[in-house]
Amino acid sequence: NLDKYIKDKSFVLQLAVWGLRGVARVILANNPLSGAVILAALYWASPWQGLLGTLGVLASTLTAVIIGQDSAEVAGGLHGFNGMLVSLLMGVFSSAGDWYWWLLVPVFLGSATSVFLFSGLTTLLDNWDLPAAVFPFNIIIVLYLLCTGTNNPYFPHNPAMPPGALEPNNTELIAVEVIRGIPLGVGQIYATGALGPSLLILGAVVLYSPLMGIHAVLGSAVGTLAGLSMAVRHESLYSGLSGFNGALGCMAVGGLFFTFSWRTFLFAIASAFLSAYSDIALSNLLGTVGLPACSWAATLTATLMLLLTGSLKEYRIPIGQVKAP
Amino acid sequence: NLDKYIKDKSFVLQLAVWGLRGVARVILANNPLSGAVILAALYWASPWQGLLGTLGVLASTLTAVIIGQDSAEVAGGLHGFNGMLVSLLMGVFSSAGDWYWWLLVPVFLGSATSVFLFSGLTTLLDNWDLPAAVFPFNIIIVLYLLCTGTNNPYFPHNPAMPPGALEPNNTELIAVEVIRGIPLGVGQIYATGALGPSLLILGAVVLYSPLMGIHAVLGSAVGTLAGLSMAVRHESLYSGLSGFNGALGCMAVGGLFFTFSWRTFLFAIASAFLSAYSDIALSNLLGTVGLPACSWAATLTATLMLLLTGSLKEYRIPIGQVKAP
Amino acid sequence: NLDKYIKDKSFVLQLAVWGLRGVARVILANNPLSGAVILAALYWASPWQGLLGTLGVLASTLTAVIIGQDSAEVAGGLHGFNGMLVSLLMGVFSSAGDWYWWLLVPVFLGSATSVFLFSGLTTLLDNWDLPAAVFPFNIIIVLYLLCTGTNNPYFPHNPAMPPGALEPNNTELIAVEVIRGIPLGVGQIYATGALGPSLLILGAVVLYSPLMGIHAVLGSAVGTLAGLSMAVRHESLYSGLSGFNGALGCMAVGGLFFTFSWRTFLFAIASAFLSAYSDIALSNLLGTVGLPACSWAATLTATLMLLLTGSLKEYRIPIGQVKAP
Repeated sequence: NLDKYIKDKSFVLQLAVWGLRGVARVILANNPLSGAVILAALYWASPWQGLLGTLGVLASTLTAVIIGQDSAEVAGGLHGFNGMLVSLLMGVFSSAGDWYWWLLVPVFLGSATSVFLFSGLTTLLDNWDLPAAVFPFNIIIVLYLLCTGTNNPYFPHNPAMPPGALEPNNTELIAVEVIRGIPLGVGQIYATGALGPSLLILGAVVLYSPLMGIHAVLGSAVGTLAGLSMAVRHESLYSGLSGFNGALGCMAVGGLFFTFSWRTFLFAIASAFLSAYSDIALSNLLGTVGLPACSWAATLTATLMLLLTGSLKEYRIPIGQVKAP
Repeated sequence: NLDKYIKDKSFVLQLAVWGLRGVARVILANNPLSGAVILAALYWASPWQGLLGTLGVLASTLTAVIIGQDSAEVAGGLHGFNGMLVSLLMGVFSSAGDWYWWLLVPVFLGSATSVFLFSGLTTLLDNWDLPAAVFPFNIIIVLYLLCTGTNNPYFPHNPAMPPGALEPNNTELIAVEVIRGIPLGVGQIYATGALGPSLLILGAVVLYSPLMGIHAVLGSAVGTLAGLSMAVRHESLYSGLSGFNGALGCMAVGGLFFTFSWRTFLFAIASAFLSAYSDIALSNLLGTVGLPACSWAATLTATLMLLLTGSLKEYRIPIGQVKAP
Repeated sequence: NLDKYIKDKSFVLQLAVWGLRGVARVILANNPLSGAVILAALYWASPWQGLLGTLGVLASTLTAVIIGQDSAEVAGGLHGFNGMLVSLLMGVFSSAGDWYWWLLVPVFLGSATSVFLFSGLTTLLDNWDLPAAVFPFNIIIVLYLLCTGTNNPYFPHNPAMPPGALEPNNTELIAVEVIRGIPLGVGQIYATGALGPSLLILGAVVLYSPLMGIHAVLGSAVGTLAGLSMAVRHESLYSGLSGFNGALGCMAVGGLFFTFSWRTFLFAIASAFLSAYSDIALSNLLGTVGLPACSWAATLTATLMLLLTGSLKEYRIPIGQVKAP
């Protein structure tokens, strides 16, 4: 298969495959082909964001090689996805516009730092057989945004708006826009808010595992429902930002860390709701200082689900053996 | 005894006993009779709050049964007390008034979620033989209040006032009201601020263990003293809110997790002071975003005491054997 | 040697040596002579601060003896440095002026509490062979400042100014002042901003280990560089506050927890940058509620470095064997 084939090839080709795996890992898939499709979707949505994502995944994978991280982990793309997310989010929050080349400095440094955090957190969480997941990304992006602040002369950024903020004027909720927000929620995992690329990303997930694709859409729908029940800002629903934590929380339980069964499915729905409501809560909290909650909610919820005793535990797959369902 | 007797009885009766144990567990007791007396006190203080508490303890205990938690834990009431606290505090902070039936939706969901957190945190903390205690409650109530915000159209709530907030006009401190706040601090563990029910709750503690009752009053007095030394708002002293973290911190060390001795007693006083001052600090911090500090301070302090090495460690009772002194 | 010699001497002399070790431990040295030089520097900078530091280190060391902490730890000064830092920072932030004797109450209580936290956190972190380091100090000073608030009638204090705050008017950056900030960064580890005492403190470090001294200056320079790249307030650069987290992060990796090599040296530089940027981020965050970030950044970064797998791990010295390089 592919892994064997590339073993004899040049380092550049190997790095490309590791990188593409890293791209797919963001959405809990582990397949270079899905990674390639997703990367294409990102370039389609915005060439600048596509470039940032590419550089992020390469920078962090190379850092992992340089500081001597486990080579099996590197080859599995485990050191790429946090770097990619850091880069994408730095690009999205930057208010300096596209093609602002100075942004590459924090992109490189942030992506490289994600490897340090991934390695350290893995040691810490290994005690409970928990993955470091996207904790490194979430920590770094929050620190970066805090570090620069909104009025930084070199790296200005837009503050995040909490979902609970009051609407400027009372407008009607448009149902079709809300429904359109559900697939956008899948795209928001890669910080893209365009419909075409989002659907392409969803396609890449289905390519990897149709079960995962169903959980992604379902989770996003649950997140949107949670958003409606808390009367969040309309923009939050329309853009898919209400949905993406639900999608991640649902996929992690329903398709990744546990073997599928009807029981697991119910836990996946519960995980989606918990992720979505926690996201609203954390977004409101961090929003008071202009920070986004990123995927803190889904990451914490998935970690909680992995710690659960009782009937869910019987279905748990040890972290070392987690792969395609 | 009772446990044997109910084993052959119907599930409803069993559930009632488990629930009453859960009610008593809130104040670190483990006795269905104390639970019944406390529940009566809550219905006396406010029938709506009594109902919410009852539903909370039942919802979380049933959730624990459904998701397959350890049956000995369920029977011991370990899955009831966090759900009860979540429900009581949702009721207290709600600004929609009593008998607002929609509140039952978050009450059920929050109580059910407390079981997930209890199970996950138990796995996490088991490493150091630490209990999950009321961490689940403290997490859920903060997330709930953050999620809804103060101007939510469905679930509005009152913001918490930090104890360090300035008094509107300089009024004299009334000594008798301050002293009255000491027994109220015991009642505030169940979020009730009425004198009669507070004394009844104290009676229920004495019924379980007189030593525990003494520590409760002493801890509340220590908390009040700490509040005076930091010149907190008068209302905070009068209502007993200054005292309840001290009471919990004092009881946990003096009567629950350690065998009693004069040394333990001094550590219990230290724990009460530490809980009380930490509570003022955390209340001031969380109060900047309108959140209450609940029992974070006492829970963190008790956890710290359980981790202590040195002379206190010799008196520590392993978590599995903690029961009536 | 000294340790053997004092074993037969009076308790007061022993306590003095333990205390001086504790004074040196603040800057990661472990040598009573360095401690004596540093203490002299503090009395030179401000007799009141010197007194507070002395009382702090004595109070916490005595508390450790009283609550029965491990005597080897006490003799190594491990229970002194957190208490000293708590006292120094209470003095620096107090707005009641020097020789405000009431301040001794929180100084004693805070220093004593640091022993509780040190003991508890050591148990918690021992799992990963991590030190409690200055986490106790960082926790206590934040709680103390939150507890009293800025307008407390008994213990008023100055709010901390975040480094990202806008300058009142656009002034030019003075290069010589920035360079002067580098040695001041070493002094700021003991919360002193005067040049002479800072140089004396640096001398005390060189006395203990010249390698450590180099890392201290280098780390402070890295921190200043990081501050410049983020356009922090000029005052933050001039006072050395931008540098001290970098210095601590650099020293911990380059001279304390890892054997020295060129690889370790590069990791020490990385640690300095990470500490410095995290400090700007955390200072901006905590500054929104008027709190300082103290040495949270360096402590967290050093902890992360200790958890790292890969090539750095090979150089790691087990915590029990950490001593002079």
